[in-house]
Amino acid sequence: MSQARLMDGTALARRVVEDTARRAARLTDRTGVTPCLATVLVGEDPASVTYVRMKQNRCRTANIASRHVALPAATATEDLVGTLAALSADPGVHGILLQHPVGDHVDERAAFEAIAPEKDVDGVTFASFAAMSFGLPGFVSCTPGGIMRLLDAYGVDPAGKRAVVVGRSAILGKPAGMLLLARDATVTYCHSRTEDLSAAVREADIVVAAVGRPRLIRGQDVKPGAVVVDAGYNAGNVGDVDFDSAVERASLITPVPGGVGPMTIATLLEQTVEAAERQLGVA
Amino acid sequence: MSQARLMDGTALARRVVEDTARRAARLTDRTGVTPCLATVLVGEDPASVTYVRMKQNRCRTANIASRHVALPAATATEDLVGTLAALSADPGVHGILLQHPVGDHVDERAAFEAIAPEKDVDGVTFASFAAMSFGLPGFVSCTPGGIMRLLDAYGVDPAGKRAVVVGRSAILGKPAGMLLLARDATVTYCHSRTEDLSAAVREADIVVAAVGRPRLIRGQDVKPGAVVVDAGYNAGNVGDVDFDSAVERASLITPVPGGVGPMTIATLLEQTVEAAERQLGVA
Repeated sequence: MSQARLMDGTALARRVVEDTARRAARLTDRTGVTPCLATVLVGEDPASVTYVRMKQNRCRTANIASRHVALPAATATEDLVGTLAALSADPGVHGILLQHPVGDHVDERAAFEAIAPEKDVDGVTFASFAAMSFGLPGFVSCTPGGIMRLLDAYGVDPAGKRAVVVGRSAILGKPAGMLLLARDATVTYCHSRTEDLSAAVREADIVVAAVGRPRLIRGQDVKPGAVVVDAGYNAGNVGDVDFDSAVERASLITPVPGGVGPMTIATLLEQTVEAAERQLGVA
Repeated sequence: MSQARLMDGTALARRVVEDTARRAARLTDRTGVTPCLATVLVGEDPASVTYVRMKQNRCRTANIASRHVALPAATATEDLVGTLAALSADPGVHGILLQHPVGDHVDERAAFEAIAPEKDVDGVTFASFAAMSFGLPGFVSCTPGGIMRLLDAYGVDPAGKRAVVVGRSAILGKPAGMLLLARDATVTYCHSRTEDLSAAVREADIVVAAVGRPRLIRGQDVKPGAVVVDAGYNAGNVGDVDFDSAVERASLITPVPGGVGPMTIATLLEQTVEAAERQLGVA
């Protein structure tokens, strides 16, 4: 068995961001308005601070303005909701990103729902999730959306394939499964309560690992020739897949880092420009 | 192998409706208000007329008032939306049911979204679907909700089990899978594009057939001892499961009729009273 081909998220994301930058510049030429992403951060968790800064930097490279709102860690749900509602009503803001998790004392769902669906470029609202699930227009969750772009770029058509999603979070596993189902895959959701995870994963033509447990999926769990997408983030740049053994069985595999990660931000930027186009009537 | 035990939806639904009738009477005693379900019917499709009449009749037995709005077949989306928005704002109406399908010229999704989530006792809105999917409080789609009640009544705990849902409609297959996933089943969605349906179904500890194709699931597809739930409606009182062969392999099975069907209306009535309780502040 030869080694799998790598799905290069860094290169694909670069192309998507370049296209997005051109779209943004064209929009600004036509309307005089620069697309703007508002980022909202509660508290000063170092990882969250880093993520937000990274997103702001990438906005610049894509000709997108960003506006940052930093709120104290002790911010109450109603104040966060108020901030998000104000950004939703602000015509100078086209997309809104609430960096999460937001802390246990905040009702995260209430906060998400305060984001207007037309500005929900991170795809976190009920309406965005349902639209993804029903194959209707709307913004997708950025990581699942980025995964679908990667599959498309490498010629993987999910239709009729067995897809196994390991993980069922609201912003990653659940929407990833729904997007695959909308593209006619036969989709199985596995999770911490799944009794024989290895057996379930071995059925998969496409595996999406999205659970946050280092090297949970090993090569012996991978059906020969399967497509393996590792959306896991773990300390030390380790994914949810044991890359060294899985690469010997898969036909296509995402590296960590440089696979799914870059596609997440690229999708965020692309959706921000799309939101601005729609709001400015230039879609 | 002995024959499967029947899951008697008629008997369970009777108990649920009796409980609901008592709750409704108690609510009326305390508040002077009778819970009210508004039914909206577009056109005069004979099956739809029958379904609506059946629901109105069952309302009476549950001490629920019903109000019927009949609209001509040619009703435009905006008029239907206007009707549903008015019912959503009407304090005398606690639950709203839009009989569907509504006809190809109507934007059914726009109509559903005009129903206030707190009155969405049929569980058709984006918000209800997402809440079901994320295990949050809200009203469930009535047929999937009825299925979960049946499983509970017969002591079937989905946790850790392999569940296979055949069908992926917005009001049946998709929410049924999400409710099973929220209860910790390992859930697979199959559909018309699934390549080897028999093989997928044979993995299932719990099968939910919800696709509307007569006798699609045969006994030989059923893993011995599996729980088989037939949510299919086909002409001539035939389900999606070939009952005569499946009953020889399953441990529990729903008959058609008398299985899932009665539980759908029972769930609608129960959720109407629950909606009234919440709106009247007596929850």
